[in-house]
Amino acid sequence: MVTGAASGWVKVIGLGPGDEACVTPDARAALDAASDIVGYGPYVSRVALRSGQTAHATDNRVERDRAAHALDMAASGKRVAVVSSGDAGVFAMAATVYEVLEEDLDRWATVDVHVIPGLTAMTAVAARVGAPLGHDFCAISLSDNLKPWDLILKRVALAAEGDFVMSFYNPIAKARPWQLGEVFTKLRALLPSETPVVFATAVSRADERVEVVSLKDAAPEMADMRTLVMVGSRNTRVVTRPDGTRFVYTPRKVAAQDLEEAS
Amino acid sequence: MVTGAASGWVKVIGLGPGDEACVTPDARAALDAASDIVGYGPYVSRVALRSGQTAHATDNRVERDRAAHALDMAASGKRVAVVSSGDAGVFAMAATVYEVLEEDLDRWATVDVHVIPGLTAMTAVAARVGAPLGHDFCAISLSDNLKPWDLILKRVALAAEGDFVMSFYNPIAKARPWQLGEVFTKLRALLPSETPVVFATAVSRADERVEVVSLKDAAPEMADMRTLVMVGSRNTRVVTRPDGTRFVYTPRKVAAQDLEEAS
Repeated sequence: MVTGAASGWVKVIGLGPGDEACVTPDARAALDAASDIVGYGPYVSRVALRSGQTAHATDNRVERDRAAHALDMAASGKRVAVVSSGDAGVFAMAATVYEVLEEDLDRWATVDVHVIPGLTAMTAVAARVGAPLGHDFCAISLSDNLKPWDLILKRVALAAEGDFVMSFYNPIAKARPWQLGEVFTKLRALLPSETPVVFATAVSRADERVEVVSLKDAAPEMADMRTLVMVGSRNTRVVTRPDGTRFVYTPRKVAAQDLEEAS
Repeated sequence: MVTGAASGWVKVIGLGPGDEACVTPDARAALDAASDIVGYGPYVSRVALRSGQTAHATDNRVERDRAAHALDMAASGKRVAVVSSGDAGVFAMAATVYEVLEEDLDRWATVDVHVIPGLTAMTAVAARVGAPLGHDFCAISLSDNLKPWDLILKRVALAAEGDFVMSFYNPIAKARPWQLGEVFTKLRALLPSETPVVFATAVSRADERVEVVSLKDAAPEMADMRTLVMVGSRNTRVVTRPDGTRFVYTPRKVAAQDLEEAS
């Protein structure tokens, strides 16, 4: 790629679930090389600025402005790190940056744009409780800010029919208080009442909180906006060890008779 | 947890897609603390042994024996790292370890078992091509060694109906040569012929190979056993920049009319 002398870059970086020990060396190197750090306030705060770096912390709801700002700074020669929690490509800033870039390809023609992956919440949560993602699974954002609520419910129902383990990102927010409850109601009509549900909040941080309950007892109040909610498949098991601790896992094997029982 | 004095631990560790810069400090610390490294040969080879560490490289098909061996060594006081590529919890060793553990809880009652997450192939591949996982998605292993082929086809069809982006792990192998072709045939009946398909092999390694084609041109020969195959949703876009490079992304927004057109 031939770039103008003045042109910089944008790297959209996933910082992982929160613990510094989960930030990859790849992400760390990209952060170190940046002149400017751009992102939602709490994520920018996670980056220890080195001398000469400028932080641009912005509000939660201005993703598109933030992306355009990052691309503009890069076009003027800056090396811009756009930071997200988890993996930048999973319900985070990477899609927004490409969306905005597509709308004016010529304006940012000389800017290098890359994504640096990170540990997404789903796999960090799975590791905490055992191995619930040991078999086929899906990830659904429950935010209906940018997609119709009916589509979300349709996907939840199809995932239940297919017996996928489901991870719900953005399960609840002040502006979206009832959606998670409606999802649980729908799932209770489709899945066994003992299906395991994991509520994992702030995984890998000091205030980490993980609860495992049965679908019949799952309640929206168990989640806040930092929670990932995971619903098992018909095969997901909760096992108690002799010392009383529990683990959750989904066996790799599905027998033909399980399939018949499920359908 | 009260543990016997002689008891060690098992940590099931995800090494990420291949590049050392994608191994988290968390995983690195667990590897450093291990007395024994256990896993499929090519994954064990990725770990630079320090003095005093013993490697136990085993064949691809002996996951259960490997897990029991790791648990037994830990019960005798060893600190055992079981290594997987990608994330240990995603179609890898973590589920096997818990499966084997469950079958004899008392035998390994004193062994601490933990999973250390890693970058799973799906997010590493997404980062390479853009942001195809910017919207709801699923992951399906195409291996029918442990589940009925009909269940795999059913899940593929439901995922297409729900317009999930799909990542196929274990797409092809010598013993499973025709399955991926059958999946493409099925998908061609369900999705637009221009739906983007990504074939990504050995991502982050020296021999990395990434191809983006349309569903109508997708062929099983484009994959080998190290390939992750990703199929876009009806909204996934392939965009060519002024310099001729392309990116693939799935917009965050789905309009109500897209939903109607899809159904």
